[in-house]
Formats: sequence, structure tokens, C-alpha cells
Amino acid sequence: MIVTCALNGQILPADKYTIAINDLGLLRGYAIFDFCRTANKKPFLLPQYLTRFRNSARLMDLDLDYTDEQITCTVYQLLETSKLPFAGIRLLLTGGYTADGFTPAKPNFLITIEELSLVPEAVVENGVKLMGYAYQREMAEIKTTNYMVALRLRKQLQQQNAYDILYHSNGNILELTRSNFFIIKDNTVITAATNILKGITRQTVLNLAEAQYKVEEREVKLAELAEADEAFLTGTNKKIIPVVQVDQQIIGDGKAGKVTRNLYQAFVDFEKTY
Amino acid sequence: MIVTCALNGQILPADKYTIAINDLGLLRGYAIFDFCRTANKKPFLLPQYLTRFRNSARLMDLDLDYTDEQITCTVYQLLETSKLPFAGIRLLLTGGYTADGFTPAKPNFLITIEELSLVPEAVVENGVKLMGYAYQREMAEIKTTNYMVALRLRKQLQQQNAYDILYHSNGNILELTRSNFFIIKDNTVITAATNILKGITRQTVLNLAEAQYKVEEREVKLAELAEADEAFLTGTNKKIIPVVQVDQQIIGDGKAGKVTRNLYQAFVDFEKTY
Repeated sequence: MIVTCALNGQILPADKYTIAINDLGLLRGYAIFDFCRTANKKPFLLPQYLTRFRNSARLMDLDLDYTDEQITCTVYQLLETSKLPFAGIRLLLTGGYTADGFTPAKPNFLITIEELSLVPEAVVENGVKLMGYAYQREMAEIKTTNYMVALRLRKQLQQQNAYDILYHSNGNILELTRSNFFIIKDNTVITAATNILKGITRQTVLNLAEAQYKVEEREVKLAELAEADEAFLTGTNKKIIPVVQVDQQIIGDGKAGKVTRNLYQAFVDFEKTY
Repeated sequence: MIVTCALNGQILPADKYTIAINDLGLLRGYAIFDFCRTANKKPFLLPQYLTRFRNSARLMDLDLDYTDEQITCTVYQLLETSKLPFAGIRLLLTGGYTADGFTPAKPNFLITIEELSLVPEAVVENGVKLMGYAYQREMAEIKTTNYMVALRLRKQLQQQNAYDILYHSNGNILELTRSNFFIIKDNTVITAATNILKGITRQTVLNLAEAQYKVEEREVKLAELAEADEAFLTGTNKKIIPVVQVDQQIIGDGKAGKVTRNLYQAFVDFEKTY
């Protein structure tokens, strides 16, 4: 649930968390966003998220008329008011209030502070199963609000008792609906290099992995799943979650692997010191 | 501009044309819509639009808990209140108010009545130039709210002094951003059969054309533009507009063609009798 909220730099009263119906984000899906969270009651890696948000805005030709300092200041104000010890922080930039249903206007810029749940310990311990699906996100390097393919498949996902969808295209593994995907083979940490949204957690994990392992950003073939020793996913709130199965393919011995556990520990340690 | 509006069957007061910020149409682009207009002060071909809207909802796994009769009744009420002699009618169905930013809830169903401008006579007389772009809409047969590619290219479109974008993929002509595309060759009326949104105006024009011409729904190659005698686009408010140029390619003699004019007249006559 949204706990506090600002629209175009103005903090909204609790009974006015609304936007006019002619916003182009709603009418034409013309919007980009980003989503980060707190750690130790502070925004975690906010500058990195802001850089990506600004890049998405530029690539979608949406003007963001606020400096990083202004945005950060509003985020801190909203967090304080929210009184949430652990929170999600959403930044959303839309094509604005259109006069004719199609022509963009001055962008609307929303910041929301939201309740956020921790990933259950059993998930982190035992790992998850994924469902493969042939799809590459449109303009994958931009964090747009287009999640229609993922949401349309939600019942299929439940039926298969899978945790999330693993997108692949032309035999290449890409990403999950809101996470990046890694495999481990012979102590090398491997993840897709292109046609994905480059996660902030993905980059953090790559940086941490480099201290201990060989790291490869490259094309990752679906066929490599059968040979992988381990696999995991990364995400803002998910941190690192072991992946033990994709469709019928068991990964390694079907349990959370040693390298995955090491990286998880390194990530948690890094987060503590942030 | 939106003149009157109903949300989930309730007509909204004029100062409350808003939706809560946690609507999934806004946050995750999870929404379908349709758009029709009046003719002779009545909704034009509304049953056909409702059929398509319902089909989009079903394909996107969004529940529409209103009968055609209920929707039609609300549309008439809103039109009457709007006092608009000529109006656009938008139906929008979203994934609802999400609790966690991703999980769908009970869908929100919006109906809006909007001011609509007639296409300038000069455009209908002289025809328009299009800009080609290699792209196929995601889930093209569903009328989703995803128009990001079109909106992102708006400045490029202006620079090229083009009226709209003609999407093509693998050498096949598909559709425009919000219109269908036809060519005429040797008195045969030809349009793409698949990987497009099948317009209500497209189907009406095909029906009218069959009385006078040979009609083909099939793959249309980009290379056929050079050999075409005429071309035109169809759309809900655009009716039939001649296309005289695509990028550097002049179509036929670069003027609105005879078959196009005939079909335009047939369409206008049909509309008058509706």
C-alpha cells in the first residue's frame, strides 16, 4: 500500500492519492518508473536508481524537471512522514495530462512510499522454480511501465506453481519479469549482457562477485541451464534468491548452491555497511 | 478534453475525474481500451466496438463485469449530459487498485466522453505522407494502452513532416499507430491480414469495397508500395484519408486516387444512413 506520496514536488494529503484520468501513463501507457527500497532506514543505492530513472526518461523523451537533490530531499521527507522502518520508493514519470488523448503535455512526476514485505526465509533457503517464456521486453533497456505480458500470464504461473517467469528469445536467456538471472558454471558467474533491463542489484552482485570469482556478461543460451552448477535471480527487494528449477530442468543438484550462498552473504554484508 | 466520465458504472462529478495512483493501468500499463465516436449524434457502430473491447479484455485476462446493455446505457447517459454534438467515446479497463504494486485487483472500468475534432478537409483532399518504422505492436490483435513506441517517435515524425508512422516488420506492411493501411493495385483493394489490430473502420471499408472491387486480406510487402496505384488509411475518426507518400516513396501519381475517393464517398453515405 502507498503510505505517502508526492505529485510534481508537492506532498499530497492522504485522501488525495489520485491522478486525473487524462494522464497519458494511464491512457497510452506512456510512462517510465523506477523502484528502490530502504536499508538501515535509509534509501539504498538511491543515486544509482536516480541515474537509471533519468536515463529511462531521456530514452523515452520525457522531461524530468527535478534535480537529483530535489528528488532525494522529497524522498527523505516522504520516508520520514511514512514512519515505515522498511519501505519501497517508487518514482514514476508520465506523459502528462493530454488534451486530445494522445499528445503529450508537461510530464507528471510521482514519488510514492510503499509498504514492502521481506522475502520469506524459506524462499531464500530453498530456492524457487521458474517458468520459461519466449519473449523479449520492448525497449528492454528502458524501465517502462509495460508489464502486460507478465500480468497476463499470472494464472499460468500459478498453475505451474512457479515463482516467476524467465524470458528467453532466440534461444538466449534474458531476464525475469522484474529480476535478472545468473548461472554459475565452474565457479564462473554468468549473466546476460544485452536486451535486458540492467538491474541495480545485478550490478552490485557483479561487483561483489568479481572479488571472488570469474565474471562473464555475455549471451547465455537456454541450453546452458542443463550444464549449470547453480542459478539465482537478483532484484531490488529480492536481493539474491536461488533458482533450483526452470520448467522441467532441475539446476545442478536442485538445491541452493555454494556460490549463490556466498554471494548472498556478501550482499547482505555490503548492505549492512551502506 | 474529457467532458463527462463514469467509473465502474457511477457517473463522476466534474471535479472528480480522477483515479487512485495505485491503479495497475498507471503503475504497470495493465489495461485495454477502445475508442469510438458519434455519428448523427448517436454512437456509431458501438456494438462492433463493444465486441472488440470484450475480446481485448478476455485476451488480457481482465474481467469486464458489465453487459453490453449496461455499457450502452451509461454511454447514452454520458453523451446526453455532455451536450456534445460530435464526441469521442473511450472505454478503458485496467488491472484495478493493486495492494503491492503488481498483483491485479478488481478491474476499474472507465467510460469517458471527449471532445473530438473533424479531420481538416485539406487532409482528406490532398492526402498525407507517412514515415515508415520497423516495429510490430506487442500482442497486436489486442487493443492495449501500449503506445510508447509511437509517442517516443513524435519528434522524429514532426521533423520528417509526416502525418503518422507506418509500422512494418520483416518486409511486411502492418498498420499505423492508430489506423489501418490499404493499397490499391489494378482496382484491387489490399490490406494486411495478420499481426495488426483489426479496425472497425477497416472492416466497414472492406465490406463497402466488396460491392465494387476485388478485395484481398493478405501479407502486404513494403516493396508493393512502389507498384501501388493508390493508398489510404482508415480510422475511427479519420474515416478514410489518402496516403500519397511513405518516406521517399511517392504512391501512384502522388495524389488522392479514384478508388480512394469512391470508397470515401461510400463510407460517408453509409454513415449518413446509420
